[in-house]
Amino acid sequence: MNQPIGIIDSGVGGLTVVKEVLKQLPNESIIYVGDTARCPYGPRPVDEVKAYTWQMTRFLLKRNIKMLVIACNTATAVVLDEIRTELKIPVLGVIYPGARAALKSTKGFNIGVLGTIGTIKSGAYEKALKSINRKVNITSLACPKFVPLVESGEYKSAIAKKIVAESLAPIQKSGIDTLILGCTHYPLLEGLIKNVMGNNVKVISSGDETAREISTILYFRHIMSTDNACPKHQFFTTGSSSMFSQIATAWLEQEIVNTETIYLGDE
Amino acid sequence: MNQPIGIIDSGVGGLTVVKEVLKQLPNESIIYVGDTARCPYGPRPVDEVKAYTWQMTRFLLKRNIKMLVIACNTATAVVLDEIRTELKIPVLGVIYPGARAALKSTKGFNIGVLGTIGTIKSGAYEKALKSINRKVNITSLACPKFVPLVESGEYKSAIAKKIVAESLAPIQKSGIDTLILGCTHYPLLEGLIKNVMGNNVKVISSGDETAREISTILYFRHIMSTDNACPKHQFFTTGSSSMFSQIATAWLEQEIVNTETIYLGDE
Repeated sequence: MNQPIGIIDSGVGGLTVVKEVLKQLPNESIIYVGDTARCPYGPRPVDEVKAYTWQMTRFLLKRNIKMLVIACNTATAVVLDEIRTELKIPVLGVIYPGARAALKSTKGFNIGVLGTIGTIKSGAYEKALKSINRKVNITSLACPKFVPLVESGEYKSAIAKKIVAESLAPIQKSGIDTLILGCTHYPLLEGLIKNVMGNNVKVISSGDETAREISTILYFRHIMSTDNACPKHQFFTTGSSSMFSQIATAWLEQEIVNTETIYLGDE
Repeated sequence: MNQPIGIIDSGVGGLTVVKEVLKQLPNESIIYVGDTARCPYGPRPVDEVKAYTWQMTRFLLKRNIKMLVIACNTATAVVLDEIRTELKIPVLGVIYPGARAALKSTKGFNIGVLGTIGTIKSGAYEKALKSINRKVNITSLACPKFVPLVESGEYKSAIAKKIVAESLAPIQKSGIDTLILGCTHYPLLEGLIKNVMGNNVKVISSGDETAREISTILYFRHIMSTDNACPKHQFFTTGSSSMFSQIATAWLEQEIVNTETIYLGDE
């Protein structure tokens, strides 16, 4: 089963999942689609997020993927169940992996969730956490300023530091012991977030946890690549291919030069 | 799907899995069987381990379990594949979860594995790790003295400290950055093991990681208990029920009084 794993995101955020897959599953091939031109999904109406996510999904289905990973929390929140029902291949999101990792980590069962407006409004993390443990206390916070910071490459600046501190103020003294970064862009701000929240709060990256779940499902479905596979990775964006390649090269710490720009609008 | 999850082990070691399931999956009911009378499995011939594990499995199948967890590394190593092929319900072992957690944790891809003679001789961890990442370096070490220490309750004594230090000497300077406790008994010695290995080695409990995999498979198979389930837990041992209850109460930090002794020999 040396077919590729399809990974989709609203932009470059899903590369945090790719990075962990490259590390944890080096025999696997990846096809990534980032809908950079229409990013962020967070503030968009549900129907738009659904339509865009289906466009990326159909693009990848034509390329014979063996598994689909929706590496965008907003898209997972609104359309994972629908796509899973329609497709024959396994379809994974990023919300349950983050919820599971948080429930393993927490000691006091007080868990915080950061996400886009769309993700927080959907209540998807609350639903996931409560379906596993109904007694857990959850404090959610939408951080609409974080994705634009990351997509613009400004995520290490003094402005970023200030925005992160201001955004997190409402939950800084909430008593949570575990904080889920419920957006695949947020790991880029992890250092700043940890500085604000302090050492007593364990920070969980939902995207990065997803690689373990991918590994589990590949194994249980008997679709792992063979250990002599020659993995190939392909990257597609709806935006600028050179800007995507540049960001991907920096984040993945390996040269990515073959990004192709695609148009998804009419598919 | 409020049926119980069946968990089997050669003795009390699998309670480290139970503890994590109680914490991470509080809506789930558990039936546990510990083959204390015939523990340890580590030094036994493969055919014997297979026969004993099948006896526990058949005992639980009569009790309508929805999933079977082989919470014993030795049994996982020699009979997981066979039982998985025969049963219609999902069957989980403890080796792949430990391998996955180690591959997520490692930075230098130098991973150590501690286990019983049976587990180490089987090469099951090497196979699991290499099937996921063929370039990983693995240093394995059998620690036949650890299980008797734990089963006898001697795991906090000065003798335990000495035995752990002596046993780990061969891998203390091996350059590993991650160490898998490839036996569900070993987490009881975790403090002593960490003291010997130092802060630069991340210690992974394969059993305790298994609870996350249980959670993943329950979700993907649509067999999670409903969130208003009233979970019930049952414990069976082939040895002394009072001694089992005493150890279970101490490890699980909640009173376990209803352990029943069973005889599996002729099943």
